[in-house]
Amino acid sequence: MMHMNIRLPVIIINYKNYAQSYGKNGIELTQAVERVADETGASIVIAPPGTEIFRLSQTTKLPIYAQHIDPIGFGSHTGHTLPESAAEPGASGTLLNHSERRLTLAGIEECISRARDLNLGTVVCSNNVATSAAAAALGSDFVAVEPPELIGGDVSVSKARPEIVEGAVAGVKQVNQDVRVLCGAGVKNGEDVRCSLELGAVGVLLASGVVKAERPDEVLMDLISGLG
Amino acid sequence: MMHMNIRLPVIIINYKNYAQSYGKNGIELTQAVERVADETGASIVIAPPGTEIFRLSQTTKLPIYAQHIDPIGFGSHTGHTLPESAAEPGASGTLLNHSERRLTLAGIEECISRARDLNLGTVVCSNNVATSAAAAALGSDFVAVEPPELIGGDVSVSKARPEIVEGAVAGVKQVNQDVRVLCGAGVKNGEDVRCSLELGAVGVLLASGVVKAERPDEVLMDLISGLG
Amino acid sequence: MMHMNIRLPVIIINYKNYAQSYGKNGIELTQAVERVADETGASIVIAPPGTEIFRLSQTTKLPIYAQHIDPIGFGSHTGHTLPESAAEPGASGTLLNHSERRLTLAGIEECISRARDLNLGTVVCSNNVATSAAAAALGSDFVAVEPPELIGGDVSVSKARPEIVEGAVAGVKQVNQDVRVLCGAGVKNGEDVRCSLELGAVGVLLASGVVKAERPDEVLMDLISGLG
Amino acid sequence: MMHMNIRLPVIIINYKNYAQSYGKNGIELTQAVERVADETGASIVIAPPGTEIFRLSQTTKLPIYAQHIDPIGFGSHTGHTLPESAAEPGASGTLLNHSERRLTLAGIEECISRARDLNLGTVVCSNNVATSAAAAALGSDFVAVEPPELIGGDVSVSKARPEIVEGAVAGVKQVNQDVRVLCGAGVKNGEDVRCSLELGAVGVLLASGVVKAERPDEVLMDLISGLG
Repeated sequence: MMHMNIRLPVIIINYKNYAQSYGKNGIELTQAVERVADETGASIVIAPPGTEIFRLSQTTKLPIYAQHIDPIGFGSHTGHTLPESAAEPGASGTLLNHSERRLTLAGIEECISRARDLNLGTVVCSNNVATSAAAAALGSDFVAVEPPELIGGDVSVSKARPEIVEGAVAGVKQVNQDVRVLCGAGVKNGEDVRCSLELGAVGVLLASGVVKAERPDEVLMDLISGLG
Repeated sequence: MMHMNIRLPVIIINYKNYAQSYGKNGIELTQAVERVADETGASIVIAPPGTEIFRLSQTTKLPIYAQHIDPIGFGSHTGHTLPESAAEPGASGTLLNHSERRLTLAGIEECISRARDLNLGTVVCSNNVATSAAAAALGSDFVAVEPPELIGGDVSVSKARPEIVEGAVAGVKQVNQDVRVLCGAGVKNGEDVRCSLELGAVGVLLASGVVKAERPDEVLMDLISGLG
Repeated sequence: MMHMNIRLPVIIINYKNYAQSYGKNGIELTQAVERVADETGASIVIAPPGTEIFRLSQTTKLPIYAQHIDPIGFGSHTGHTLPESAAEPGASGTLLNHSERRLTLAGIEECISRARDLNLGTVVCSNNVATSAAAAALGSDFVAVEPPELIGGDVSVSKARPEIVEGAVAGVKQVNQDVRVLCGAGVKNGEDVRCSLELGAVGVLLASGVVKAERPDEVLMDLISGLG
Repeated sequence: MMHMNIRLPVIIINYKNYAQSYGKNGIELTQAVERVADETGASIVIAPPGTEIFRLSQTTKLPIYAQHIDPIGFGSHTGHTLPESAAEPGASGTLLNHSERRLTLAGIEECISRARDLNLGTVVCSNNVATSAAAAALGSDFVAVEPPELIGGDVSVSKARPEIVEGAVAGVKQVNQDVRVLCGAGVKNGEDVRCSLELGAVGVLLASGVVKAERPDEVLMDLISGLG
C-alpha cells in the first residue's frame, strides 16, 4: 500500500546531527540501511542533514526526506532552506515541525502547501492528540506523534502511553481521512513497532536507536520484525 | 448569547503598541470605549499591552484580554508572560498567535490548555481556512481569521475575500462545533461588521481603525451599527 | 557612587515568573525587600514581571527594572513590550538578553538605543568574556555576566570561575570604560557578594535565592553583609 | 594579502535562495563566476545554499562559504546546520547573523568559536557601527556592515552613508585589530567597490546585483575594476 510517495508500513530514520549523520559516516550508515532494505524488502526512508541530501542521493535508492524546509519561495532568504533546494538535490519529502525545530502554525501550513506543489511528502511532528488533529487539519501526508516525555527515553510510546497513539489516530481520522499517523517516540524494537501498528499507526519515526547503534543493521532487522 | 465569558456579537479592540495604547492615552481611550459600550449596550472587549492590564482593570468594567501569553508555568522564565500574571491583574482572556506574535503549534495548544485552567477566554489568530480549522482542533474559544493581504489595508475581508470568512466558519464548525469565528482584518465600518456577521462570524477584531482614530467613539458607533 | 540611575554597589533581584512574583505575593515580597533596603541603606533594584510594574510602582520606592523590552517603537507590535510601555508605568531600567530571553545582536543594540532615549538604565546579560566585551561595545550601562554552567546552581561564580568575572571586568573596561559589570550567577550569600566585588564587579544579579526563600529578608541581610 | 583563508581584497557573492542559486542554475552561475575569477585573478568567494555546498565543491575551485551555521555540536538537532556538516562537504567559511538570519549574541559567539575549531572563516553581518564593534569583540575574521536602509536598494553605502563604513572600520579596529571590514549593502559597480576600499573595507559582500543579473560575468568584471 502506498501513501503519497511512500510504501506502507514505513520506518523513517532521522539522522539528526549525530557524528554518524554526515560525510563518510553518513554514506556508510546509508549503505547499511539500504542493504537491510534490499534484503528484507522493508520500506525505509532516511532523513539526513540538508547538506547531505545531494551526496546521498547519488549513492542510494532509498527515499530521502529533508529534516526541515522553511516556509519560503525564491528570494532573499539567506541561510534558510528553500523547498526547491531540498527537492532538486534529491529529497522526495520532508519532516516538519520536529520538536527540535518547531515552526509556527502559519509556517507549517505554508510548508505543506509549498511541498504539495513540489510533490514532496510531508511528515508533521506533533506532541499530543490535539496538535495531531491540528496538523491533520493542515493536510499533511503524515503526522508523527511524539509525546515529549518519551523522546529519547527507554520506554515505548505504544506501551507507556498507548492512549496517545490511539487518540492521535482517532483524532486525525476525524479531521482528515487522508492523513496517516506515525509513532514517533520511544520506539526501540520490533515489539514496539508491532504495538504501534496495532494502535493504528502506519509506521515509525526514530533516530538515535538506529543511527547511534554499533550495528544499525541488527537494530533495523529487529524493528522490521515488527512490521508484520 | 454568551460564549466563554464574552457576550456575542462582540467587537474586540487590539490596542497594539500605538502611542494611544498606554499611560494617560490608554486610560482616555478606554474611557471613550466604555462610554460607547454603556450607551449602546454593545459587547466590547479591549486588548491593551500587558503592562497596562492592571491599571486599566482598576478604571474600567470592560472585559480585558491580554495581547499574548507564553506557554509556561511558574518558574525561570525571565521576560515572558505567565498566564497567571495576565489573569490576576485583570485579564479575562487573551489573544494568541497574532500575526505580529506567532507561536508554534505546540505553543498555541499549551497556551489554550493553560488558559482553560485559569478560566481565560482564548482568541487564536489564523491566516486562512486551513489554519483556522487547525486552531479549532486545538479547542480555542474563538478563531480570528486575518488574511495577511488584508491586514491594515483599506478593503474589508467580508467584501474582498468573503470566501475566506465563509470557509473558515465552515472549516471550524466541521472540526469543532464549540469554536466561534471572528473577522480579523479589513473591518472598517458598520457595513463590514454586518457582512462579517452574515458570513457566519460572531464578531470582529480590529485595531488601528479605532485606536488611531481622531474620534474612536464615532468609529465605534459606526461599527456597532452593523451589529444588527 | 551612582551609575546611570543606580547607586553602587547594587543588588538586583530578578523576580522571574515564580509563584512569588505577582499579585499579592509580589507585593509582600516587595515590601519585605523594601524594609531591608530601608533598614540597611543598601541599594536594591527589583525586576518584576512586566504586568506588575505599574502595581508595584504604586507601592514601593525601590527602583524597578523591566525583565525585558522589545526593540520596537510605536506601532503594530501586538504582544510585544514597547520600551515606553515599561517606562511610563514605573520602570527606570531594564534587563536585556537574559539567558531565558535572548535577543539578536541588532535587537540588543536597538533596545539600548531606545532605552537611552527614554532614560532607562540597561543591564545586558552575557554568558562569557567575549559576549561581555561585545555587550560593552553596544554601550549598555551594565553587563551581567552569567556563565550558563553556574545558573541556578549551588556554586558561586566568584569561587568556581573567578577568571570569568575578572576576564569580563577587564574585557569590558578595554572596550568601553563607562560600562560596569555585575556578577549574575551562582551568588548565594554575603561571601559570594564580597568575592564578586573584589573581582571588580559593582553588584550582583540574582533570582531564586531571594525570591523563593522562605525568609527573603534574612537572605538579603546576608547578601548585604558582603557589600562591605 | 591573506586573511584567514581568503585572499584580499575579496568579493563575496551571497546566492541567497534566488532561482539562480541551486541545481543546474547554481552550477552555471558558479561556472560563470569562476571564469571571471580565472581570467582576472580576482579573489571571489561564493555563498550558496547549504544543500548546494557539496555539489558545487565538486565542480569549482572557488572558495565556498555557507550562508549560516547553527551554534551546535553533534547531537539531537533536527533541521539545524551543524558546523561540521557545512565544512566537510566543502565550505571553508560561513556567513553569520545575516539580516535575513539573525542569531543571538551568544549564538554568534558560539558559532565563531566552533568555526575556529574547524578552521572555518567567519563573516558576521552587522547593521551599524555599534554592532560592528560588538562583532569584532567576538573575534570573527570579518565584519560585513550592512545598513538596513541600503539593503537591496540602488544607493551605495560608500556614497550614501560613508560615515557608517568609516565608523565601522574605526570601531572594529579599536576593539580588535585582527578583524577586517567588508562593505555589505548598496554595492552595485566598480565605483562602489573602489569607494568601499578607500573607506577602509577589504572587500564587499553582495547578492542580487550579481546573482540575478542577466550577465553575472559582466557585472563582476565591472565590480572587479574597482578592486584597484
